[in-house]
Amino acid sequence: MRIQLEAKELPDKWYNVVPDLDFRLPPMMSQSGYPVGTHDLEPVAPYSIIEQELDQENTYILIPKKIRDLYAEWRPTPLYRAERLEKSLGTPARIFYKYEGVGAVGYEANTAIAQAYYAANEGIKQVVTATGNGEWGVSLAIVCNYFDIKCKVYMIRPSYEEKVYGRYIMEMLGAEVIPSPGEATRTGREVLSKDPNSPGSLGIALSEAFETAHNNDDMKFCWGTVMNHVLLHQTVIGLEAQKQMRRADAYPDVIIGAVGGGSAFGGLVLPFFQDRKKLPRMVAVETAAAPSLSKGRYTYDYSDYKGVFALLKMYTLGHGFIPPGLRAGGMRYHGISPLISALYGEGQIEARMHTQRQAFDAAVSFARAEGFIASPESSYTIKAVIDEALACKTKGQRKNILFVLNANSNLDIGMVKDFLDGAIEDQPFLKEEVETALKQLPKALASND
Amino acid sequence: MRIQLEAKELPDKWYNVVPDLDFRLPPMMSQSGYPVGTHDLEPVAPYSIIEQELDQENTYILIPKKIRDLYAEWRPTPLYRAERLEKSLGTPARIFYKYEGVGAVGYEANTAIAQAYYAANEGIKQVVTATGNGEWGVSLAIVCNYFDIKCKVYMIRPSYEEKVYGRYIMEMLGAEVIPSPGEATRTGREVLSKDPNSPGSLGIALSEAFETAHNNDDMKFCWGTVMNHVLLHQTVIGLEAQKQMRRADAYPDVIIGAVGGGSAFGGLVLPFFQDRKKLPRMVAVETAAAPSLSKGRYTYDYSDYKGVFALLKMYTLGHGFIPPGLRAGGMRYHGISPLISALYGEGQIEARMHTQRQAFDAAVSFARAEGFIASPESSYTIKAVIDEALACKTKGQRKNILFVLNANSNLDIGMVKDFLDGAIEDQPFLKEEVETALKQLPKALASND
Repeated sequence: MRIQLEAKELPDKWYNVVPDLDFRLPPMMSQSGYPVGTHDLEPVAPYSIIEQELDQENTYILIPKKIRDLYAEWRPTPLYRAERLEKSLGTPARIFYKYEGVGAVGYEANTAIAQAYYAANEGIKQVVTATGNGEWGVSLAIVCNYFDIKCKVYMIRPSYEEKVYGRYIMEMLGAEVIPSPGEATRTGREVLSKDPNSPGSLGIALSEAFETAHNNDDMKFCWGTVMNHVLLHQTVIGLEAQKQMRRADAYPDVIIGAVGGGSAFGGLVLPFFQDRKKLPRMVAVETAAAPSLSKGRYTYDYSDYKGVFALLKMYTLGHGFIPPGLRAGGMRYHGISPLISALYGEGQIEARMHTQRQAFDAAVSFARAEGFIASPESSYTIKAVIDEALACKTKGQRKNILFVLNANSNLDIGMVKDFLDGAIEDQPFLKEEVETALKQLPKALASND
Repeated sequence: MRIQLEAKELPDKWYNVVPDLDFRLPPMMSQSGYPVGTHDLEPVAPYSIIEQELDQENTYILIPKKIRDLYAEWRPTPLYRAERLEKSLGTPARIFYKYEGVGAVGYEANTAIAQAYYAANEGIKQVVTATGNGEWGVSLAIVCNYFDIKCKVYMIRPSYEEKVYGRYIMEMLGAEVIPSPGEATRTGREVLSKDPNSPGSLGIALSEAFETAHNNDDMKFCWGTVMNHVLLHQTVIGLEAQKQMRRADAYPDVIIGAVGGGSAFGGLVLPFFQDRKKLPRMVAVETAAAPSLSKGRYTYDYSDYKGVFALLKMYTLGHGFIPPGLRAGGMRYHGISPLISALYGEGQIEARMHTQRQAFDAAVSFARAEGFIASPESSYTIKAVIDEALACKTKGQRKNILFVLNANSNLDIGMVKDFLDGAIEDQPFLKEEVETALKQLPKALASND
């Protein structure tokens, strides 16, 4: 069953949770130990984005008309009730999912459009970013064309060389895609001088991208996740879902979502903080191979490999930790959004871990029931949703479960082949490597823990 | 700009063009030279489907509630005005596209759902079909799960072995996928005894599937395209588009669509025959390597390699003709739907040819303007649309152009890589091979030409 909003029900404001928190969100810090201000962010971000990133006062931020018009090309997105999945599980629970795959672009475009709009508005002609498998890079590349902005993307080298679909789609769209690490940046040269065969990491690609933004006056960096303003833009997901759940006469008892950086999960759950008296349970799902919330430390750490950008207080496995290869490339980042980290630190959300084989098994059940082939990241969500629904069956509880579905598996559809071939192994949690990485946190700020 | 209908505007009837034609549609014929009746089709199709296939009287056929409920999971689909593409071309023409990719399933599901519903209703437990790259097979496999029907798919061997994504998704969905030609059928054994390395063809896969349906009492065959009932089910596309064009205050001057079997094109154009006084120009786009309308003969030919099924009067390159490999696998069939063929034969629609490199170039321009990565088949449509829009520019004409967009390129996204690598060659029209194939048409009916 599909619950579809009308065009006029598209949100006209983003929801900024920061003023509504019942604790103070720890600020970003510079390397030298003071809270980051507008001036520090100017070299990498448009002014409007900086304002949104640091905004602790305005609970609602108007969505400019041009952005709303572009959202209206595919939003409001549908909410589905997964009746066939419920039936196949024999659960009394009601399962709802917000499907973000109806447009030319995935959910990442909710923020890509906003960032490209503000950049163009401020006369910026080029943006730069970092991407793993390429989903985020593809969304940004599509949107940059709408605003006539050049798009440069640092892509982790093994993805650039092997998961070529994302790369070639970005190139088809006219973006410049650069393998990371590479010789063009100081970070890249430094990494390659230590290890000419370095496989790179998202942290390294981020450092290269930040460095490039710093070195080009008319170029800004675009964030795909982690930052407050990204989660802010993603709240259109949750704001729409709230209206749709009301229409279904079903307030969510539990909201479940995979977290890589945390933006899709944040976009869905944060609007529920508008009514603190009725907070649902909120469950962040991690991959067992890189469980920042479940096994990391809550402390200030670099967001990128070199610390070119500011330090963020977040659950981290250490910026030097390189997780094993995973099909859900979006879940390999060493940290989690400061907002999601703080909520977890305050005990306001839960965390849970699954392996990639558990996740893929769940995705198979889901596809057979609902028809959608989930993205690798959403597969983790679905595993947790099925567990929750089966617990409801055992206990005879008719809970309402809500999640976001991304079904853009086309960039790594080879995963399906590998899984059915039995060629997907569960990856271990590399405990010793994490311990080593956590010993190498930026020292100046250790006292801030 | 997106034009979205409300849920209640979903069509409640399919449109059957046959009674509205101003000529008599030539019937299907048996091998022995008499028109095919219900009895001949019983071994392969459910009764309700046979009734629809042969219906020459009822202009409107009610869509059963269960099918409408399933359609409502993603329909009505949006109509877009391609304003960014218009601007990039500098054309005064207005370009509209009906986007069929918003659900778990592609446009093929418009008929897959209907066929599975009627089969289940009549107690059928298994269906069988044939597929090239796998788009049709995937749609059918998804829908069979909804009705608890087993799904068996004969897949052309090179696709089965190389374009494995479609195969693996079908297997993930629980369908049985069998490479064709294979040892399990008489057709397969016969083909392999002549040539153990036969690459197969859709015609051979069809023969194997028909044979399998004949040999199993509780199993029916499902058609992905070509047949009247398939085009009937696809008319929901055009019926919705008519409402949306009215809302945009734009009657189409020209409708353009790629034809493989002809079902997506038919689904869009046929409803316009409801008002014969206002017929738009209708342009069927073929691949230059297999141009049945442009270079074939209008005659009775086998729909499958062996003639296990009936003979169809259609534009054909000869059932024995094996076109060169093409990225748009859906456009390699040797014939074109009898309905579309008859309309072309009567001069009521036009045909045009493009090469795959022309098509892909157009798809790149389209992706940069509109964001959507077109399917290989839709890329041909877009080439013809751009040509038409540029002709409008030269002549200063503000025409309304309408087409269907399928963007399910995920089953062959490697095409993007190959194109950018310069590894996609235009394929020749194999004139001599076609001449040979046309000499081997079924003789009994040659006088019916």
